[in-house]
Amino acid sequence: MLQPGSVQIHLPAWAGEFCARLPLALESPEERMRVAISLAEQNVANQSGGPFGAVVVAADTGQVLAVGVNRVEPGNCSSAHAEIVALSLAQQRLGMASLADAGIGPVELVTSCEPCAMCLGAVPWSGVSALLCGASKADAEAAGFDEGDRADDWVDQLERRGISVTTGILRSAAAKVLERYARSGGTIY
Amino acid sequence: MLQPGSVQIHLPAWAGEFCARLPLALESPEERMRVAISLAEQNVANQSGGPFGAVVVAADTGQVLAVGVNRVEPGNCSSAHAEIVALSLAQQRLGMASLADAGIGPVELVTSCEPCAMCLGAVPWSGVSALLCGASKADAEAAGFDEGDRADDWVDQLERRGISVTTGILRSAAAKVLERYARSGGTIY
Repeated sequence: MLQPGSVQIHLPAWAGEFCARLPLALESPEERMRVAISLAEQNVANQSGGPFGAVVVAADTGQVLAVGVNRVEPGNCSSAHAEIVALSLAQQRLGMASLADAGIGPVELVTSCEPCAMCLGAVPWSGVSALLCGASKADAEAAGFDEGDRADDWVDQLERRGISVTTGILRSAAAKVLERYARSGGTIY
Repeated sequence: MLQPGSVQIHLPAWAGEFCARLPLALESPEERMRVAISLAEQNVANQSGGPFGAVVVAADTGQVLAVGVNRVEPGNCSSAHAEIVALSLAQQRLGMASLADAGIGPVELVTSCEPCAMCLGAVPWSGVSALLCGASKADAEAAGFDEGDRADDWVDQLERRGISVTTGILRSAAAKVLERYARSGGTIY
C-alpha cells in the first residue's frame, strides 16, 4: 500500500560555496539581482537544473535570507521553481509560513526572470512586500519556456495586494542566461 | 553566513494509518473525491493544517499515487497547499518531474476545493491530464479564504492545455468541511 512521506527539495552542492562567498549585505536592487542571475548561471554551468535563480532578501538591511534555483528535473518536482524554493527555504529557516510575520521588516523576492503563473500565485501567500524581476516573460518565451496563463495586468494584481513590483532590472544580462541555455539544448520546462 | 539546505514538507503522522486503510483502487470520481474530503476533515480533526485535502490517482486503474493535505502553518511553508503536496509526493515517488512521463497512463488530481491561483498555475507543469474539484471558490471565500487572482475562464485555460476539469463533485460535503473549520475559528490562509 501507499506509504506517506515527505517532499524534499535540496539545493545543489555548489550552493554552499556560493553562499559562503556572498557579501553580508546586498545593498542595491542591482546587487541583489546580480546574485539571482549568478545563481541561474551557476545552475546551468553545474547542470543542476534550469536557468533560473532567486534570492530572498531583508529589504532594509540587504541580508540574504535564502537563495533558490530551479530544481524541477533533478528534484523530480514540477513546482521546484527558483522562486518557490527560495521562499520556502526562507520561511522554514525563519519558522514562519509568512515572511511578513518574521519580525525582520519588509522582505523582497528577487528573481532572475518574471514569475510564471504558479510562482505569481505564490507571491501573495509568501508575505513578501516587493518583487524584483530581471528577464521578461518575452525573454523566457523567446528561449522556449512557457510562463503559463498569467494575466496581462499581473503587476497591478500584486500592487493591489500591497506588493510592489519592479521589472527589467539588469534585464539583458538576465535574458542572456536564458538564451545561452536554449542555444545549448537544455531541457525546456 | 547563510547555510544552504533543503525544503522539507512532511505529511502528518495520522496519514500513515489513513493510507493503510484506503482501498487498493478508487473507482469512481465520487469515491476519489470522498478520499480528498476525508483528508481535509482529518487534517482539521488532528489540527495538522488547513481544511484542504487532495489525492493523485492513476485515472485508468484508480491506484492512489499520493495524498496531500494543507501543511502551510505546521510546515512553515506558504506553498504547502494540499495540491502541491500531493503532486510533489507523487512525482518524487515515481521519480519524474512530469506525471505524464511516468508510464502509468493519464493521472488525475482530485482536490477537496477548487485550486487557488498558485495551485492552478502548478497544474499544467505537473503532467496531470484531469482535475476534479469539490468545493467552489465561492465556498472557500464564504469561509474566509482568499483564492488569489484566478482568471474567470480558468477552466477554459486548463482545457486549452488538454487538461479536463470537473467541478462540484460532492460539493456540499466538501463545502461543509470549510464551513465547520471557519466556524470553529481555525486559522485562515
